[in-house]
Amino acid sequence: MIQLSQKIAANVIQPRKSQSYKGTYGRVLIIGGNANLGGAVIMNAQAAVQSGAGLVTVATDFSNKTAIHARLPEAMVVDYHDHLADYIQKADVVLIGSGLGEEVDILKTCLKAVQENQIVIIDGSAITMMAEHNLDLPKAQVVLTPHQMEWQRLGEVAIADQSREDNNWEALVSFHPEPILVLKSNATQVYLEHELYQLSVGGPYQATGGMGDTLAGMIAGFTAQFHPLGPAVLSAVYCHSAIAAELSKSAYVTLPSKIAEAIPAYMNKLADMPLSATGLDEEQEE
Amino acid sequence: MIQLSQKIAANVIQPRKSQSYKGTYGRVLIIGGNANLGGAVIMNAQAAVQSGAGLVTVATDFSNKTAIHARLPEAMVVDYHDHLADYIQKADVVLIGSGLGEEVDILKTCLKAVQENQIVIIDGSAITMMAEHNLDLPKAQVVLTPHQMEWQRLGEVAIADQSREDNNWEALVSFHPEPILVLKSNATQVYLEHELYQLSVGGPYQATGGMGDTLAGMIAGFTAQFHPLGPAVLSAVYCHSAIAAELSKSAYVTLPSKIAEAIPAYMNKLADMPLSATGLDEEQEE
Amino acid sequence: MIQLSQKIAANVIQPRKSQSYKGTYGRVLIIGGNANLGGAVIMNAQAAVQSGAGLVTVATDFSNKTAIHARLPEAMVVDYHDHLADYIQKADVVLIGSGLGEEVDILKTCLKAVQENQIVIIDGSAITMMAEHNLDLPKAQVVLTPHQMEWQRLGEVAIADQSREDNNWEALVSFHPEPILVLKSNATQVYLEHELYQLSVGGPYQATGGMGDTLAGMIAGFTAQFHPLGPAVLSAVYCHSAIAAELSKSAYVTLPSKIAEAIPAYMNKLADMPLSATGLDEEQEE
Amino acid sequence: MIQLSQKIAANVIQPRKSQSYKGTYGRVLIIGGNANLGGAVIMNAQAAVQSGAGLVTVATDFSNKTAIHARLPEAMVVDYHDHLADYIQKADVVLIGSGLGEEVDILKTCLKAVQENQIVIIDGSAITMMAEHNLDLPKAQVVLTPHQMEWQRLGEVAIADQSREDNNWEALVSFHPEPILVLKSNATQVYLEHELYQLSVGGPYQATGGMGDTLAGMIAGFTAQFHPLGPAVLSAVYCHSAIAAELSKSAYVTLPSKIAEAIPAYMNKLADMPLSATGLDEEQEE
Repeated sequence: MIQLSQKIAANVIQPRKSQSYKGTYGRVLIIGGNANLGGAVIMNAQAAVQSGAGLVTVATDFSNKTAIHARLPEAMVVDYHDHLADYIQKADVVLIGSGLGEEVDILKTCLKAVQENQIVIIDGSAITMMAEHNLDLPKAQVVLTPHQMEWQRLGEVAIADQSREDNNWEALVSFHPEPILVLKSNATQVYLEHELYQLSVGGPYQATGGMGDTLAGMIAGFTAQFHPLGPAVLSAVYCHSAIAAELSKSAYVTLPSKIAEAIPAYMNKLADMPLSATGLDEEQEE
Repeated sequence: MIQLSQKIAANVIQPRKSQSYKGTYGRVLIIGGNANLGGAVIMNAQAAVQSGAGLVTVATDFSNKTAIHARLPEAMVVDYHDHLADYIQKADVVLIGSGLGEEVDILKTCLKAVQENQIVIIDGSAITMMAEHNLDLPKAQVVLTPHQMEWQRLGEVAIADQSREDNNWEALVSFHPEPILVLKSNATQVYLEHELYQLSVGGPYQATGGMGDTLAGMIAGFTAQFHPLGPAVLSAVYCHSAIAAELSKSAYVTLPSKIAEAIPAYMNKLADMPLSATGLDEEQEE
Repeated sequence: MIQLSQKIAANVIQPRKSQSYKGTYGRVLIIGGNANLGGAVIMNAQAAVQSGAGLVTVATDFSNKTAIHARLPEAMVVDYHDHLADYIQKADVVLIGSGLGEEVDILKTCLKAVQENQIVIIDGSAITMMAEHNLDLPKAQVVLTPHQMEWQRLGEVAIADQSREDNNWEALVSFHPEPILVLKSNATQVYLEHELYQLSVGGPYQATGGMGDTLAGMIAGFTAQFHPLGPAVLSAVYCHSAIAAELSKSAYVTLPSKIAEAIPAYMNKLADMPLSATGLDEEQEE
Repeated sequence: MIQLSQKIAANVIQPRKSQSYKGTYGRVLIIGGNANLGGAVIMNAQAAVQSGAGLVTVATDFSNKTAIHARLPEAMVVDYHDHLADYIQKADVVLIGSGLGEEVDILKTCLKAVQENQIVIIDGSAITMMAEHNLDLPKAQVVLTPHQMEWQRLGEVAIADQSREDNNWEALVSFHPEPILVLKSNATQVYLEHELYQLSVGGPYQATGGMGDTLAGMIAGFTAQFHPLGPAVLSAVYCHSAIAAELSKSAYVTLPSKIAEAIPAYMNKLADMPLSATGLDEEQEE
């Protein structure tokens, strides 16, 4: 097990190259937000935009359009009932599931449309629906971001058994292709290419609704611009909780939207950090 | 009579346990906001979310959806005309009445649906409707948050007579079960289990529309996460006015939405405070 | 001519009495905002709320509801096509005209419904419509807030002639009852009970759309809580430009919504100021 | 080639004259924002308002109204399907194209309606549509703000060939009247009256969606109030990236809406700057 450290996170966030443009930093498509749960995609999108994704489009129940634009004019908004496959085709990263409710047709359209070269982050109700409807993972680079109950449903590992690493690996190898698993709990873990990464920053000030939506948006934003995929996911997971930890010095709870606002400053700090300052010896196998 | 002190408030707000998740901090359902008064539930919800409730759902006239999400993506929004009883069943705390206007059917559905183990905070127009329609309190743990005129209507104690503690107790014992009474005025009092608590912080900078909606939202947020009920109510009442008092050092009026934004920092201060610093001897019977 | 000074403004803004509640600070009804000009009433309402009016209701084209609540949950919103006379009856101060466009029926309903004891502030397109439709002032305590072109229309004083005080007085005495005139220009003047007050703070950083809407909202907020009427108007006019002057130290233009946000801090400063510090000798007849 | 310097920018931003009013600073009409891309005109309008344009109106798909007002009450909003030519006639500056999608009829109406004395900024999808539909520039003072791909379409200069100044001049002289070209890239250039200006501030922290919408809005705001046209465009281009550079000291990405908020402070700094401090010798021919 490897402690997920600031060094791992900082290695990913390099100063941007001057010869670059917004296309360099990737196109993110966020699919989610039914008529009641539009807040989830707002939090997704805020996090993706603030993380520095090149272009962010939200495909959602169109009744969510005005609230999204009122908070975040940087995002484009489309109706997820129309031409969804076309929008998916143009994306580098697809994040599906936050606030999607029981819109299984949207999910099926997405799973069918994505292609091998695309990154697909599957979150929230999409995970539950995949379990309930017995849907296969798409042929793409998949990141799963379940909390423990959702992982019990999809991975068929009872919550009590999730504390044993082997059980989770066993479940993971049954998926094809094998996804990256971000297993959210009060001690979030990332299962990535035969290695388990343990998050050791963050705390119970994060135990509030929407926290996972912000994390999913950060993973989308990071994986759109940083390559390869694995370290980008690790960096997003670390930064999300590290920002919360900083905010918690002056906040009893750290709201998801406040974390999103603090992303650019935190990323800037890591990008500017000499590598020697990121705790070279902090990373330890256990 | 006991002075409602910082110590009482601080004793409630303990550092969170690391072994916790959002469900630990309770599900709040806010019911209110007719087509004209959506601002009231926005203020309710902002206060509940900023107080650290685990999950906050607003059941409202659905025309209020976009404004709620635009200000507060952390909240879920449902139409209070559809499946309200189902939403109530899933809640730990129900706050009903802010901006509810004359939607008596919504109120009746709520009163009928809530169960003994649930906390029900009855505010604003719900109090007036209970008096006008002669409705009984639900069989639940009830907190009433009337201002003086509303208490005159529901408790049948004339405003002039409310200054005598006995009159209010007499009215309270006629309710079954006996509720906690937060009697709002320029010297707000809490009647709780045979004891009267007197608020001695706050001031006329709070005399502005929406102040009570923010208080009700804080009570919902505090009672969802802190137990038992009584001290949680006391802590919310104290913190609400203490925050206003702090803001008033640089504001002629302290707007409800500004108070909401300041909640996490103030709670953090109290949670970090050594007990000896909270004024051990400040609490006095009179 | 009297220079409108900080002392005049500060004399009005007294510390609030502890024995007070939101009703003490008045009910403001803002009527305006057609389907295209909803921003005007948002700026009215923000200014009135931040000034400390007890309760603020906006009667507007109902398509403006969501934007108002998204910015300002403290305000109530009603459709100005329904029961407008009823809402007017409950108000202490009515502000009509910002962004009202050509909705002359709304204006006529208002002029007919207001009563002698009410304060009526007539702004923007309401002034133009009164001139075009030859409407009489209502029997109420009227404040007119035209810019120079609007005053040319209503007062029939050509802009070139407005620099001579006598011409404006002459026009004013032809109205019954005689209103207070706030004649907006780059050197705004207030004509009040046979005395001319000259604003000597503020500047061209205020020359931007919406500035007058914020001023009108402040006049509504001040006159709702401070009595008598005349000094309250003077104080609002002074504070509006004094805040802009402060903001201009770090802003090339001072946006109306930024001025609104700065009201509570500025009023607090004046309320806390010992009278001797407000420039006792600054006030001078010329 | 002339380096686009702070001095050039500062020379334009003079302290405002006290004898001025909002009309002095120009009327801007922003045309854009189809049903999915309303965020683009929000960013246009925020930038124009914050730059100090006298009056800003947005003509857009009317479904964007509420989000615009919720973020920016200072802007008026009209439906671009109704009476667009009338609104154009009243404008000093017309900005068309951000988020316009494929609304070619709107574009044609605009091109036909504008007149010689008006400034017309053509941005985003309007540029693409002009190329695709082979539309002529209007008889007006035209500013084109393409990114490299858009310039390839309209100017018929392949991206690889755009690095040679001559190719761009050759394309420009084929337009009548000859427009000002703001050619956006990671090294943005302005082609203005036989002179090429090279931007040397800014960086890859600006590579994010909406950056160009904010620039277009700033050009609209600057050209509405500063004359003559050429230096106003240069100043807007410089300030946009200079603000981003300042923000980048504490932000990994500099979001368009954050740049807009920082405009008034930056303009104030330049307006206050003694000319000798603006780098008199910094300007160099190469």
